[in-house]
Amino acid sequence: MTTGTLIAVGLGPGDPELITLKALRALQGAGAVAYFAKAGNRSNAHKIAAAHLRADVPQLALLYPVTTELDHKGEPYRRAIADFFDRSAATLARELDRGITVAVICEGDPLFYGSYMHLHERLAPRYPTQVIAGVTGMSGCWSSVGAPIAQGDDVFTVLPGTLAEDELARRIRDTDAAVIMKVGRNLPKVRRALVATGRLDRALYVERGTMNGARTMRLADKSDDVAPYFAIVLVPGWEARQGTGAGGGT
Amino acid sequence: MTTGTLIAVGLGPGDPELITLKALRALQGAGAVAYFAKAGNRSNAHKIAAAHLRADVPQLALLYPVTTELDHKGEPYRRAIADFFDRSAATLARELDRGITVAVICEGDPLFYGSYMHLHERLAPRYPTQVIAGVTGMSGCWSSVGAPIAQGDDVFTVLPGTLAEDELARRIRDTDAAVIMKVGRNLPKVRRALVATGRLDRALYVERGTMNGARTMRLADKSDDVAPYFAIVLVPGWEARQGTGAGGGT
Repeated sequence: MTTGTLIAVGLGPGDPELITLKALRALQGAGAVAYFAKAGNRSNAHKIAAAHLRADVPQLALLYPVTTELDHKGEPYRRAIADFFDRSAATLARELDRGITVAVICEGDPLFYGSYMHLHERLAPRYPTQVIAGVTGMSGCWSSVGAPIAQGDDVFTVLPGTLAEDELARRIRDTDAAVIMKVGRNLPKVRRALVATGRLDRALYVERGTMNGARTMRLADKSDDVAPYFAIVLVPGWEARQGTGAGGGT
Repeated sequence: MTTGTLIAVGLGPGDPELITLKALRALQGAGAVAYFAKAGNRSNAHKIAAAHLRADVPQLALLYPVTTELDHKGEPYRRAIADFFDRSAATLARELDRGITVAVICEGDPLFYGSYMHLHERLAPRYPTQVIAGVTGMSGCWSSVGAPIAQGDDVFTVLPGTLAEDELARRIRDTDAAVIMKVGRNLPKVRRALVATGRLDRALYVERGTMNGARTMRLADKSDDVAPYFAIVLVPGWEARQGTGAGGGT
């Protein structure tokens, strides 16, 4: 018997209309649909795909282990997570071995900061694999704000908000345009790094991107430092250089 | 009379199946479709959208002026290009003033290194504007190759191949993952910068991304230095650190 195909399906940043035709066809043709989720939480990927999932297709929820009591930099945590991805890959391999095509649904783009990559490294060497690119969360954000992010010979950098403050500042200073991810409780630090580099005035704060309840404002206008983990900060390059303050997108 | 809406429609990297549902609906609902093109060339955006364009909807080709005789760093060139974008914006404004909704079709994502941005800065302050995010060319490339590009706390950088060799090397050394665009005749320089930073072995060369005739190889295996302008080089971060050589995507 021939094995099934592993398909990573990029679903885009949240708006179900930002699914591609290719992703839609993959959902409709899959023999099983798999997704990562936290126990008790509905996954974002599942929310985005919900309208397009067929009721007769089995769904495999890959539930992250509870690791709140473990130090995230320690070996026990690393091992618990690696074991979880091993078990998840084994779950999918059982379906693939039976000739079933498995669609792993992914928020954003599967190979850009996505958990799917842990399945890819374990399964792609052994099974036919297809990756369907998706609109990234950051594209969804700058489009919803109408902020031209980079142009021409701009250098563009994605920075995790977890970097040390001086490292954030050094890298913001060294790029034309930046996106800062994982803002959450790093917001005060991100804000200080932007002030230090003279870029606070052009920084835009975006919460929940293209989902329901999206919130957007100039970071300079945000009066508190409360931010969800997945909030991002945009630091446009080109528009700032033009000095035209285009804006106006919806 | 109310004015029409300006809609920037991201069409994705080339594969017509990577158009989003939102882009498709915008194309079907627009009163006019506009696109940038070189005289005598069919635009990539037009090729991608072709199957979805209605025959009864007027198409506005915005034809770049011929500037081959001008120095691209000089003031006459800058002025010719600015005049062209002014005229293009005026062409669209005439339609918008008549209440017609104009869809500007864009390869990739409109606000990520796209020519549309020149229309956006001229028109978004004056007309209702919507930007529909698209799958970027680089997402299309790493997905077609099956190369996990960045994960976790990786720093990710987009670099133009036009940078000086030492500057390219400095920035490649200073990032976890990189995409180098505008490779073309900069390929020998890009290759030297990758050798200098010890990253040649993980660099992937991608030509024509997700379009027909896509070509992909390890850059180290490419025996010549001939590359089209829009070829890109991927330097994955995460996969290299894992050292698993996942690969296998199609």
